Amino acid sequence: MHFTAEQRLDDGVLEREFTLGEIPGILWTSGSAPAPLILLGHPGGLRRMYPRLVARARHGVAAGFAAATIELPGSGDRPRSAAAEEARADLRRALAAGQPVDDEIVNRLVLPLVDQAVPEWRAALDALLALPEIRGPIGYSGGVIAIGVRLAVVEPRIAAALLFAGSYVPRAMFEEARQVTIPLQVLLQWDDEGNDRQLALDLFDAFGSREKTLHANMGGHTGVPEFEGDAGNRFFARHLR
Amino acid sequence: MHFTAEQRLDDGVLEREFTLGEIPGILWTSGSAPAPLILLGHPGGLRRMYPRLVARARHGVAAGFAAATIELPGSGDRPRSAAAEEARADLRRALAAGQPVDDEIVNRLVLPLVDQAVPEWRAALDALLALPEIRGPIGYSGGVIAIGVRLAVVEPRIAAALLFAGSYVPRAMFEEARQVTIPLQVLLQWDDEGNDRQLALDLFDAFGSREKTLHANMGGHTGVPEFEGDAGNRFFARHLR
Repeated sequence: MHFTAEQRLDDGVLEREFTLGEIPGILWTSGSAPAPLILLGHPGGLRRMYPRLVARARHGVAAGFAAATIELPGSGDRPRSAAAEEARADLRRALAAGQPVDDEIVNRLVLPLVDQAVPEWRAALDALLALPEIRGPIGYSGGVIAIGVRLAVVEPRIAAALLFAGSYVPRAMFEEARQVTIPLQVLLQWDDEGNDRQLALDLFDAFGSREKTLHANMGGHTGVPEFEGDAGNRFFARHLR
Repeated sequence: MHFTAEQRLDDGVLEREFTLGEIPGILWTSGSAPAPLILLGHPGGLRRMYPRLVARARHGVAAGFAAATIELPGSGDRPRSAAAEEARADLRRALAAGQPVDDEIVNRLVLPLVDQAVPEWRAALDALLALPEIRGPIGYSGGVIAIGVRLAVVEPRIAAALLFAGSYVPRAMFEEARQVTIPLQVLLQWDDEGNDRQLALDLFDAFGSREKTLHANMGGHTGVPEFEGDAGNRFFARHLR
């Protein structure tokens, strides 16, 4: 892990860009005492997502956490995968034609991404936990929900996850969802144009966790109300402190 | 409105019992500055419900609210209605026989209760708002959800409602639900033995409010997690202050 740039934001948050091998990432801390880390999930494209990511990170640091994220495979400046690009094109074609998105496309789109991304996030965890300003336990927050599900199952350092039910979940992953036992808070946008509401409710039902809470709000994919940021911090405060 | 008893609870909350005509009620305040009022809904039977009601009231007063409740028609020491008792017996028979509870029974059970209770709660509001320690706007919190829905539609002093989707809602009331426009937070116990989950989700979908949030948690009817008390106070703080 190499730090490549550093700046203090106006609210005092220390933002550091890093690379982990070929993977770019960003770490946000208060710069003082060791804090529990929240991994910020996102749909890929750190530069495009930066405004929303830095807002979530500032909010988390203000509540006593550190926050970090890395670029997803095939996004931003990382090399594209021909198979993933093809799956994405098939998805776009199905949506444009008003057809239901069939499982086969979702599987091709999501499963290889999960298989590649999850070991990268775990490697990032190894590197981040070696820093003096970071301590466990760890939270995972945000999309891609399938990455969050896999991480929740395979990564024992993740103690709680706030999942955003706003992206495709292969039905093959419902079996993994049943194996999740950590506390979950699941965000669902009730009128999310790119999301199947019933599938999200079925996924919530499938999770094996004894503590799981669904927060459903009005509006589309990007309309998550601001107060859910506070609700997320309180969820992590209950489980990471 | 006549106050009939008064005590200071150990946390300093002032608890006063009152009667409004023949209807008993309880008011909880800090005893100091005027506070926005939260009406505490319940399934009927103030004495039986007292431990849970006083816990909710203390929690609300600690967060800067006043809280009040009144007995429901046909519950506690109030006169029984033969028709309501018959509907309740029919409901019990259907449940004991493992039969679906049909709309006709729900209508007989709930609609007359709503018709009678709502004017009583509004009369209680008139009396409570005349006290110097109470100010608007008002919140309604809890069950019977059909009473909350009707109040939200007809009572303009109610500015926000936290509804507990844990009791029967006549399908006839879905039309009223569409007329609700105040901010709502709806609690749903995912495995509520006496509640139809899909009906609760359909009701949430039907509400006309632009701001509505569903909080679904694991467990049965009485298993609402403690942290939902805080979440409720924050919801009311957003809308009653």
